[in-house]
Amino acid sequence: MERVWLDEFDGGAVRGAAARHAVKVLRARVGDVFAGYDGSSERILRVSGFDGGAVLVDVIAERELPETPGSRLTLAAALLKGRRWDLLLEKAAELGVGRIVPLAAERSVAKLAGEDSPDRMERWRRILGGASSQCAGRVPQICEPESPASALKMLSGATNKFILITRGTAESFASAVRELEDGETVVMVGPEGDWTDAETQAAAAAGFRAAGLGPLILRAETAAIAAAALVSLAGKDV
Amino acid sequence: MERVWLDEFDGGAVRGAAARHAVKVLRARVGDVFAGYDGSSERILRVSGFDGGAVLVDVIAERELPETPGSRLTLAAALLKGRRWDLLLEKAAELGVGRIVPLAAERSVAKLAGEDSPDRMERWRRILGGASSQCAGRVPQICEPESPASALKMLSGATNKFILITRGTAESFASAVRELEDGETVVMVGPEGDWTDAETQAAAAAGFRAAGLGPLILRAETAAIAAAALVSLAGKDV
Repeated sequence: MERVWLDEFDGGAVRGAAARHAVKVLRARVGDVFAGYDGSSERILRVSGFDGGAVLVDVIAERELPETPGSRLTLAAALLKGRRWDLLLEKAAELGVGRIVPLAAERSVAKLAGEDSPDRMERWRRILGGASSQCAGRVPQICEPESPASALKMLSGATNKFILITRGTAESFASAVRELEDGETVVMVGPEGDWTDAETQAAAAAGFRAAGLGPLILRAETAAIAAAALVSLAGKDV
Repeated sequence: MERVWLDEFDGGAVRGAAARHAVKVLRARVGDVFAGYDGSSERILRVSGFDGGAVLVDVIAERELPETPGSRLTLAAALLKGRRWDLLLEKAAELGVGRIVPLAAERSVAKLAGEDSPDRMERWRRILGGASSQCAGRVPQICEPESPASALKMLSGATNKFILITRGTAESFASAVRELEDGETVVMVGPEGDWTDAETQAAAAAGFRAAGLGPLILRAETAAIAAAALVSLAGKDV
C-alpha cells in the first residue's frame, strides 16, 4: 500500500503536501485506500471525495507505531558538516532513535546557530521524516543545538549515560549495552576533531561513563550509527 | 604524522600517486618522516632523497595492522545503486570488514557487469582504500560481482553463515552474533526489493541461517552496516 506522510490532517481531510502527493503522484480516486503516517501512528485511509485542494478520507484503521529499544535512546551528537550530519540523521531515524540533540562542541566545525538556522532545522526534520517514513518507524525528536555544558544539564536525569571516547581508558560500549537499566539511555558522540579534555571531564563529573567502540578509529557519524545499531538491535529488549 | 597510501612501493622507493602526494601535498624534504600504509601494514618512512618521480625512503619501523573481529566477516551484499553502495563500502571498511562480495541478486537494480565494469571495480577499491586509511585499519578485499548461486558455492566453507531476511521466521542476528563459532562469518544482505523466495530457499539449502535485525525496516545499506557493526563491535572477541 502507498504510504503518505500526513503533515496536515484533521481526522477527515488531508491537506497540503500530503494532499498534493495523493492527487498528483498516487492519482487517488474516490474509493482508493492508502496509508497515512505521522511519525507516531499509521492510519489506513479511504478516499471519500475532494474539496478544493483537500482530499477527504474515512479512517478505516489506526495503530500506534511500536516502541523499539531505540525509542529510549537519545543521541547527543556533535554537529558535523554537510553530508555526514545528514547521514547521521537518516540512519538514526531508520534505527529508531528516540531523540537527537545536536551539540556545538568546542571542536565542531559546524556552528551552534547561523543565518540558515531555521532552514536548517526544517531540513533536518525533513530528512528524519523521510527516513522514518521509509522504515515505518517513529520519527526521532530533534532539539535545537546545545552546547555540551547545557546538554549535560538537560540530560542529567537519564538512567544510562555514556560519552564515547577514542583515547584513554574506557569500558566497552558493546558490553555495556547488554546491561542497560530500564529507562532512558543517552550517548554523547564527539566531533571529528574529538572532545576537548574539558568536555570529557565535565561529562565524567556529570555521571557520564566513558565508553569505547573497540580498536578501530570510526568517523564521528559512523560511531553514532554504530552506537544506535548496538542499542537498537543488541540491547536487552531484543 | 601524515599518512600516505603506498600504492607503489618496492621497499626503498615510493612511486606513483604516493610519491606525487608526498612531494606536492606534504612538500616532503630529505629527513622528513611520514607513515606509509598499504592496507595490511604500516611503515614509518624517512625521506632520503628524490630520483625522478620517486621518493627514496628508509624504513624506520614496520608493523602489521591488527586483526579485528570484523576481519573474519564477509559481507555478501546485493549491489545497490549510486551513493548507497558507496556508503556501504565506506562504512564496511571503517568497521574493519574482511571481505565484500557484491551480489547481482534477481531484484538488484545494479547490474552484474556493465561497460563501466573495470572502472567500477577501480572506484570501489579507491573508496575502500580511502576509508580504511582514515581509520588506520586493513582494507577489505572486494571480489568481482557474483550471482547469489555462485556466491553460495564460493562461501559454503565458512563457519557461521547467515542470510538476513525481512519477512518470515528468523532468529535474532544480534543474539546469534554473541554465539559465533571461531572461523569465518558470512552475512548475505539482500537488495532494496528483497530476496526472491528462490534465493532464500537456495541459501537455506546451502546451510545459511535466516536471521533478522528486529522490528524496524532498514534500508539495504543500513542493514549491511548494522550487521557489520554488530559483528565488529559486539562479537565474542571484543
